[in-house]
Order: sequence, then C-alpha cells, then structure tokens
Amino acid sequence: MGTHNKHSVWIALEEKKILYQYKEVNPYKKGKHFLDINPKGLVPEIEYQGRALHESLILCEFLEDVYPDHAPRLLPKDPFERAYVRLWINHVSKSAIPAFYRTVHAQEPDKQQAELQEFHKALRTIAEKAKGPYFLGDQFSLVDVVIAPWAVRDYITREHRGYIREAVGGGWKEWAEQLEKRESVIKTLSLLEHYQPFFERFLRDEAQGEVAKATRSGRGSSIV
Amino acid sequence: MGTHNKHSVWIALEEKKILYQYKEVNPYKKGKHFLDINPKGLVPEIEYQGRALHESLILCEFLEDVYPDHAPRLLPKDPFERAYVRLWINHVSKSAIPAFYRTVHAQEPDKQQAELQEFHKALRTIAEKAKGPYFLGDQFSLVDVVIAPWAVRDYITREHRGYIREAVGGGWKEWAEQLEKRESVIKTLSLLEHYQPFFERFLRDEAQGEVAKATRSGRGSSIV
Repeated sequence: MGTHNKHSVWIALEEKKILYQYKEVNPYKKGKHFLDINPKGLVPEIEYQGRALHESLILCEFLEDVYPDHAPRLLPKDPFERAYVRLWINHVSKSAIPAFYRTVHAQEPDKQQAELQEFHKALRTIAEKAKGPYFLGDQFSLVDVVIAPWAVRDYITREHRGYIREAVGGGWKEWAEQLEKRESVIKTLSLLEHYQPFFERFLRDEAQGEVAKATRSGRGSSIV
Repeated sequence: MGTHNKHSVWIALEEKKILYQYKEVNPYKKGKHFLDINPKGLVPEIEYQGRALHESLILCEFLEDVYPDHAPRLLPKDPFERAYVRLWINHVSKSAIPAFYRTVHAQEPDKQQAELQEFHKALRTIAEKAKGPYFLGDQFSLVDVVIAPWAVRDYITREHRGYIREAVGGGWKEWAEQLEKRESVIKTLSLLEHYQPFFERFLRDEAQGEVAKATRSGRGSSIV
C-alpha cells in the first residue's frame, strides 16, 4: 500500500538478517511481471520460491514463520504474549494509521486540528503500554517494526499539521527516539528517501493510490 | 464486536476440542468484571489464566498457538500456506464483511442492490479460490472458521436484501453447504440463535454497537 507499510517489511528483513533483493516498482506504473505475481497490484510484495505474497503485516509474520530462529524473534514464544503483540499491532493499523492519513488529508484548519488530536490520542494509547526502551521492554518486536516507520517520518505531520512528539504524551517521544536509533530503521529509511513526492501528493490531496482513495471515501479505517 | 465474529471463536474452540466456559454478556449493558478485564468492552473476549484477550481473529490464532497439536490444525505448518490463509482471511475481513454490513444497512432499494453486488463479488472472489470441500481442500482451516458464520446465517440478506447463494457464483453455494454440515458450526449456531434481536436492530438501522456506528460513519471497512 504505502511507503510506510513497505518500510515495515524492510525493517523486518534487516532485523532478521534475511537476504533479499530489492526491486523498485513505480506504484503508478506497474510492470507486467509485478502484476503477474500480484494481480491486485499492491505493494509491499514478496516473491518467495516463485509465489507472491503481499500485505505488510502478513509478510512480517511470514518472515517470522520462515526464520523463527533468526534473532531477534519479532513475536514472543508465549501464546498470550503473541496475541498481545497482535492486539497492539491491530490498534496501530485500525486507529493510529487511519488517524495519520486523515490528519494529512484534512484541508481545513479546524478539521486538521480535530484529526491531529485523534492521531495524538491513538499514539498515546499505545505509548502508555510501551515498557521501554521498546514496546515489550528490551525485546524489539513486531509492534516496534510496525510503528517505527511512523515514528521516523513524523516530520510530515510536524511541518504541515502542527504535530509535536511531546504533545502526544505517554512516553511517545522517548519511544520514538529509541526507534530512530535502531540500525535496521536507519538503514532502510535512507533507502526510502526518494519517496518524498508520494507524500507531497498526499498533502495536496492529489494522491490517487489505494490509501488515498480509501481515506477520501471514508473507508480508510484499516490500512496496514 | 458482532455475533458473527464471536461465532468464529466458538467454532475454533469446538474444532480443537478446547474446554471453555460460556459467559453471556449483554453487549448493551456490560458488567464490571467484564469491563475490568476488557476496558474497550469489545466482544468476543477470552479470559486465559486471568488475562483477557479480544478481537476474534487474534483469539483464533491464539487458540492455535496454545494448542498446536489439537487436530485439526487450523493454520497449515508451511509458512507460505499460513500466509496464504491470512491473506484470504484479510479479504474476508476487509472486503466481504464490510460489504455484508453495508448491504444490511442500506435503506434505499438502489443502494441495497449496489451493495449486494459488492457483497456477491467479494464472496465470489474467495469462493473461486476454494479447492473444496473446504478452502484448502480437505483441511478445515481458519478461512473456513472465519467465513462459516456468514455462510450459515445468510438468510438475513436472503430474506431482506435479495441475496441468493447461486447468484454469488464461483462455487460459493457448494462451499456454504459444506460449512453448514460441519458439526462445530451446527453446534455453535444453535447456541447463538437468541441473538436474532441484534440483527433486527441492524435491519431497522437502529443498532448502536461499534460495528453499526462504524458502518454508518463510513469507517466500517475492516471488521473482524
């Protein structure tokens, strides 16, 4: 879907030291090979032994299933803890991310402020549960993988929508700063910098991708 | 969230022969104990060793994680197949279920027809991938668990919205008939029959639960 979600999969690949080949696909002009293996044309997408998968969260779980012994374990071994991680990822995808998109999309100042407050609240709710330095404590998990892309590129809402980390509360600033220092996050972010035009289209409400259409139609409530 | 989602968790419990205690909670008047362990007040919900979990799909995966050796395995062992199952569950939750709710909610005949066509299409897309008798072939999996509640109670859309299984196409009728015959589905359905008033509120567009509010606000795009 969007560059943030692709970024999550990339972080997971780097964390688990999985060999991969990076292939760039212009999201507005998809090639035949790409569409052959991924008829819906969604990114991110992984080709594994000739079969294609997409949806970033499913890809992250897949990488964990294929390489359970690669450190770090992105999902805890304990079933309850695994479910707990999935519940909070669910919160990120159903509350925080849609609020981010609505904040960026909003054009009128009042509406921008209202959506920004919802975005802050969704981040604060999860930040309050983070043990520090990462969500589960010392263990870097899929919750960190999924939220890191939003932490490291929050300048988009800061510069254009008045977002500030301190105003989120709940320890969000400290958590975001930890995520910014993580090697896998730094390395993959630098690869993604040329995606800035994608966001500029969002800010002008000119984006035509799936996320933009869903947000505009009011159906963008769950985007991972 | 809704009775259908609770039904999925119940089917998974029955399939895996897990001992459980059924506690009824009036979704419009939740007791203190229930809210203590589940602050968001969402159903379905499971209490396991004193800790609470909710979100039906996460609960189903949790049951599989806790009891991997209970037959049947609701998720395949192979990582690719697991991801494939999750992708199609994702389709059910992001396309089929929201289309069902929009169809039931629609009040004007034109709108009802348009939503019904989307609901048919979403079901057809997944039915075309079902190998038969179940989604993965002989193996009863989480895809069947998640879609069975919608198959066995489709009379709601048939009686009120003109839905017919044959019109869906793609082998949906045959798959739905298999699901109706599954013991775990029959047993749990009979327990749920007293939930009919919940749906009657939906049909009159009077429902006040989370799903109803989300659908009405246009944010009901992903409900599991």
